[in-house]
Amino acid sequence: MSPSRPPNPALRNPESTAKILDAALAMAAESGPAKVSIEGIAERAGVGKRTIYRWWPSKGAVVLDALAQRLEGQQFERLEATPGTDFPAALKGLIKDTWIHALGDSLPVLSWLIGEAQHDPDVALELRNRLIDPARDRVATWIRRAQDEGQVAADVDPYRAVDLVYGQLYYRLLISPGPHNEAFAEDAATLALRGLQPR
Amino acid sequence: MSPSRPPNPALRNPESTAKILDAALAMAAESGPAKVSIEGIAERAGVGKRTIYRWWPSKGAVVLDALAQRLEGQQFERLEATPGTDFPAALKGLIKDTWIHALGDSLPVLSWLIGEAQHDPDVALELRNRLIDPARDRVATWIRRAQDEGQVAADVDPYRAVDLVYGQLYYRLLISPGPHNEAFAEDAATLALRGLQPR
Repeated sequence: MSPSRPPNPALRNPESTAKILDAALAMAAESGPAKVSIEGIAERAGVGKRTIYRWWPSKGAVVLDALAQRLEGQQFERLEATPGTDFPAALKGLIKDTWIHALGDSLPVLSWLIGEAQHDPDVALELRNRLIDPARDRVATWIRRAQDEGQVAADVDPYRAVDLVYGQLYYRLLISPGPHNEAFAEDAATLALRGLQPR
Repeated sequence: MSPSRPPNPALRNPESTAKILDAALAMAAESGPAKVSIEGIAERAGVGKRTIYRWWPSKGAVVLDALAQRLEGQQFERLEATPGTDFPAALKGLIKDTWIHALGDSLPVLSWLIGEAQHDPDVALELRNRLIDPARDRVATWIRRAQDEGQVAADVDPYRAVDLVYGQLYYRLLISPGPHNEAFAEDAATLALRGLQPR
């Protein structure tokens, strides 16, 4: 256990926790995530700074917790799709559900958190544990089922299939900015499925 | 022109510039890029801090300049490949040349810079102008030629082809860490070319 790891979150006061997380996301949306401060969150949530520092090691940790709780509350029905679901259509729907509807105006928060993760090992670990790895596992499981049904090539590692689809989305978010809209969601799924080879 | 834009780099003293950039990359390699400071660079290069601040607005800008100059000095012969070059083999070679050999132990510097770019608009702009966009343009031009030769599907936007290949590499660097080795370079090119559809 790292010395900067906060105590068990189950022991937090649920009411002030909700206020702190709401304040963090609201500030990030209004002023941009880089402008969020522990002081500002404390003021807005009506709690002391020490209350925040007791449970979260940094402002990155608070913002990450807030975004993860918001996303965990969403249901992604496509991932529970019954056998026989059309895989290409469901994949396009999943990207739209997650990147356009669920993340939506929180995309700048996500890119800022990934930026923080490149120099803050605590944020990197929590980001992987809370957001990245659970999403990878869910989508890979779903791809494996599509492989069993002959809808995805059987010899592709499901996690590499995740890289191929989601790499494009993160690349556009972090490296070469462009809109995450319906057309791009469709195109990212289509291109990953069919590849670049001439037909 | 932004007020934080430094004066014309052509006016810099080439000798102290080389010392400063060498010091920045050496410090980043030894202590990790997050530990680099203007003070440390100045001490190591034997120049005053004011000399550095005169030409670069932040430590991110110095490290970016150092990495860009190092990469600009590399020749990527695959991109000059003569007509009729085998595209899949050349693409694999290109990824190995750039990500394994040219970037090599500077991958942590690249990921740190991309992290800085998520909250520092100056670093973001310079990163795109110096590294990202020139590489995208070169590779897209090369993909367009492969399309003319029938080696890449004619109806794919060459820049989206770049997203599909490079998205995987950046995703592994920034989101879901794993080794950038020969096997991964081969696999990233192969998977992008053939896609996920069952054969």
